[in-house]
Amino acid sequence: MNAVTLPLPSIPATSGIASFPRDQWYMAGFGSELSDKPVGRTFLNDKVVMFRTADGQVAALEDRCCHRTLPLSCGTLETTGLRCGYHGMLYAPDGQCLEIPGQDRVPAKARVRSYHLVEKNQLLWIWMPAQEGGAPTREAPDYPWHDHPDYKWGGGHYHYRAPWQLIHDNLMDLSHLGYVHLKTIGGNARLHMNAPMKVTAEGDTVKVVRHMPGSVPPPTYLAAWPFGAACDRWQEIEFHVSHLRIWTGAALPGTASLEDPQRHGFHMRGLHGITPETQETCHYFWSMSSNQHPDMPDTSQEVVDQTRFTFDEDRLVIEAQWENIRAFGPRAEWIDIHVDVGANRARRIVQRLSGQA
Amino acid sequence: MNAVTLPLPSIPATSGIASFPRDQWYMAGFGSELSDKPVGRTFLNDKVVMFRTADGQVAALEDRCCHRTLPLSCGTLETTGLRCGYHGMLYAPDGQCLEIPGQDRVPAKARVRSYHLVEKNQLLWIWMPAQEGGAPTREAPDYPWHDHPDYKWGGGHYHYRAPWQLIHDNLMDLSHLGYVHLKTIGGNARLHMNAPMKVTAEGDTVKVVRHMPGSVPPPTYLAAWPFGAACDRWQEIEFHVSHLRIWTGAALPGTASLEDPQRHGFHMRGLHGITPETQETCHYFWSMSSNQHPDMPDTSQEVVDQTRFTFDEDRLVIEAQWENIRAFGPRAEWIDIHVDVGANRARRIVQRLSGQA
Amino acid sequence: MNAVTLPLPSIPATSGIASFPRDQWYMAGFGSELSDKPVGRTFLNDKVVMFRTADGQVAALEDRCCHRTLPLSCGTLETTGLRCGYHGMLYAPDGQCLEIPGQDRVPAKARVRSYHLVEKNQLLWIWMPAQEGGAPTREAPDYPWHDHPDYKWGGGHYHYRAPWQLIHDNLMDLSHLGYVHLKTIGGNARLHMNAPMKVTAEGDTVKVVRHMPGSVPPPTYLAAWPFGAACDRWQEIEFHVSHLRIWTGAALPGTASLEDPQRHGFHMRGLHGITPETQETCHYFWSMSSNQHPDMPDTSQEVVDQTRFTFDEDRLVIEAQWENIRAFGPRAEWIDIHVDVGANRARRIVQRLSGQA
Repeated sequence: MNAVTLPLPSIPATSGIASFPRDQWYMAGFGSELSDKPVGRTFLNDKVVMFRTADGQVAALEDRCCHRTLPLSCGTLETTGLRCGYHGMLYAPDGQCLEIPGQDRVPAKARVRSYHLVEKNQLLWIWMPAQEGGAPTREAPDYPWHDHPDYKWGGGHYHYRAPWQLIHDNLMDLSHLGYVHLKTIGGNARLHMNAPMKVTAEGDTVKVVRHMPGSVPPPTYLAAWPFGAACDRWQEIEFHVSHLRIWTGAALPGTASLEDPQRHGFHMRGLHGITPETQETCHYFWSMSSNQHPDMPDTSQEVVDQTRFTFDEDRLVIEAQWENIRAFGPRAEWIDIHVDVGANRARRIVQRLSGQA
Repeated sequence: MNAVTLPLPSIPATSGIASFPRDQWYMAGFGSELSDKPVGRTFLNDKVVMFRTADGQVAALEDRCCHRTLPLSCGTLETTGLRCGYHGMLYAPDGQCLEIPGQDRVPAKARVRSYHLVEKNQLLWIWMPAQEGGAPTREAPDYPWHDHPDYKWGGGHYHYRAPWQLIHDNLMDLSHLGYVHLKTIGGNARLHMNAPMKVTAEGDTVKVVRHMPGSVPPPTYLAAWPFGAACDRWQEIEFHVSHLRIWTGAALPGTASLEDPQRHGFHMRGLHGITPETQETCHYFWSMSSNQHPDMPDTSQEVVDQTRFTFDEDRLVIEAQWENIRAFGPRAEWIDIHVDVGANRARRIVQRLSGQA
Repeated sequence: MNAVTLPLPSIPATSGIASFPRDQWYMAGFGSELSDKPVGRTFLNDKVVMFRTADGQVAALEDRCCHRTLPLSCGTLETTGLRCGYHGMLYAPDGQCLEIPGQDRVPAKARVRSYHLVEKNQLLWIWMPAQEGGAPTREAPDYPWHDHPDYKWGGGHYHYRAPWQLIHDNLMDLSHLGYVHLKTIGGNARLHMNAPMKVTAEGDTVKVVRHMPGSVPPPTYLAAWPFGAACDRWQEIEFHVSHLRIWTGAALPGTASLEDPQRHGFHMRGLHGITPETQETCHYFWSMSSNQHPDMPDTSQEVVDQTRFTFDEDRLVIEAQWENIRAFGPRAEWIDIHVDVGANRARRIVQRLSGQA
């Protein structure tokens, strides 16, 4: 019987396969996830274990014991560090092995790589250096809305079987609302598509702004704020290489300048931390913070729940999209349309920061 | 730690990997499958979306939006075409994009490939051209038994994790009945094996005929037709590259010439549309049409149900066979036996039509 | 859209990928598994079907019909051999085809490879020759404890998604008990780690001995034997390339010489037959034989059940370890510690017998 060798599959460049931007703070999770157990996650192809030490600090190491490669995330937390669940080697938060049970001497090379992990605004940020051991060259991002007295928030974590940039594309243009989110926040596809969109870029950020005065308020808005038949809506999307901040909301018609950052009204502030796991998969950490009208019932939990429902719909679309991109391979050229301006600028930033410019 | 690279798996040539016969009408499904939703399927490695237009016609396009490659089979049907479920681009049945929401101009290159799809005798046939855009050079096959007043029919669709030619092999020789279908229509292995088998080839078709006069009628036959202790049975298998027609049945002993195409008796006419999906998987669309004796209860549904049960058994065997072929690879040479004559002729036709002669 | 080709995955050398020791008897299962149906299993990448003939002998063939490669393990047993479940070819226990239904002549080349399989002490052992057709150069191993009047035994079969040598590593050093088996037989990690360990090698075997006089008896020991507050424990591990024999137990304090092979007390004799399936998977056949105190209830079934529970824990660890080794690839160097002496000697024997020395 003759045999034939199948060619290797080729991955479309949309996967951002060539490399990832390094020397960046990426979102690694939520502070609340680290309590009495270590948490293992892969970021930018690096397997990492995160844990909280006895004094409340957070730490991150390579997720392997240097003895026989058991994941340290299968181990247990002790006062001084993380103990491997196979032969009991104990690791300090800096990756040095402190103890090899039954052996007097601990060789200096008995250590694993450590990562800079910080907890800030109830978020975990990990520095993914260009060179192993490289120290952060700037502070992790601020996200004040989690700690702001006017806002309440909730969030979640998706594991995506799709490359991270497909989520950027999705978020950088909300015109898909009317087609993807028919069951929830859609219904006004034309309004979104036809509203003027302002795209500006500065440094490593891109901003996409749509103002839609005189809109019909969707149900969630009506439940949260005393709108009548109309409201002045805004969508302001800010792309940073490791996350997006999407500020949406509405004011009573004609009562606030949509140009004024201090404008009143109903505010929803979404954080979207998108961290590559591998070339073809990623983490999507999100939170939604909203304010409450003093005379209305608190709808913040409802806003979080509806956000989750909406993001579930996005996941179905984006994973189907990637599966199809994989299937068609290089045969499927992309035609750009008007709504792609912001997304394409974001892609150029990612490309430049990945050293592929 | 040293590392070793595993060799690429090699696919035995039995998969028909090298190429597929093109410029052929293949079965794509049943007309009844196309109603209010598009249907996505892969044929000969091409991902295709099929749908029915407002005027009742059927159409087939490449299953991707030319914008960002979402499968069009995730979209929705409208009066003038198929709308993508991501950003709402609308496609005509010929693959041209008719509308890009929010954009005035639709560029001419905003189009996807279309396929010739026809509905005939309640079947869908798709033309898979040798060159993209190639038009059919002949009519799709006729299958009059679906519309014949003497017959009632039912059918189904299997997705096989095995290459299409293994199903040809199976159907071109029914001597496996006595071993695979022990629980249903088997039981007379020797009779099948020893009945004279006549194999003839003409053009791109092969015919295998077994006549078994004086057989004991199996239970289904007894339920459908007033046979006594014996009947004169026939099996006539006709191979066409994209489908097989298997005509089995029986007449009262000595009452009909088994050479006469107009012979009376109990008739079961099986259609077997086998369409490659990929090198290692295929679609198997089948139907079974049977006639009814005027004085007997209608057993056509029972015949369809038993056929399905029997085909389930074949699937187990053929998928186990392919998994084993994959595992042994080129080590497992094939020994031919007497029953392979018809199957091997069919393989030579497939090979020639695939341009591998 | 540009495309990029992903590199082939590389398998760390810990998988023992390069080759396996051949000209060895490997465990293939338990005699009780062969009754009225053939059993298909893969050993050292060879797909094998095992069956019991009408006269009670056991036999093993390549698991494929030489006609169209259906696994013979899908077939049925007859008095003279194994009949294929597709077209009914009948094979003798030596691999020769005896009958092709409907065909007078059976060609000599209609045969499949046979293997030497023996049943001994209720175990099945298969000879995996260096050259196809190579005959055994020695007897299959003896395992008298299965047939010893003082012992009762039970066992099981695991399929591991990990290379066989990771199980050797695990068993050659029981110091992991205190970390992996916290819920069952662990709890005295320090005691194990600090007990003197004697490692000796002779020919193709390695022996690791730990004596722990004055130990606190664990619950199972207390249930099976009238220990008080203390007992003198032993662990004697004997590595052979295809299996390990682990003899653990305890005597009343100071009543038996732990050097005397005939010592009395509570004895647990574990057999661990580890047979490679592929480079990355293996079979793990095990049994546990224990003796009973004349004045105590019979705890042999309890001992087998607890052993199974403990081995379930090992499997979780070892499969997680291999998944991690796969993920890190050659980046993850191994640091040796004191407990690895025995395991590393065993690895050198495997390497030498695999012709990689």
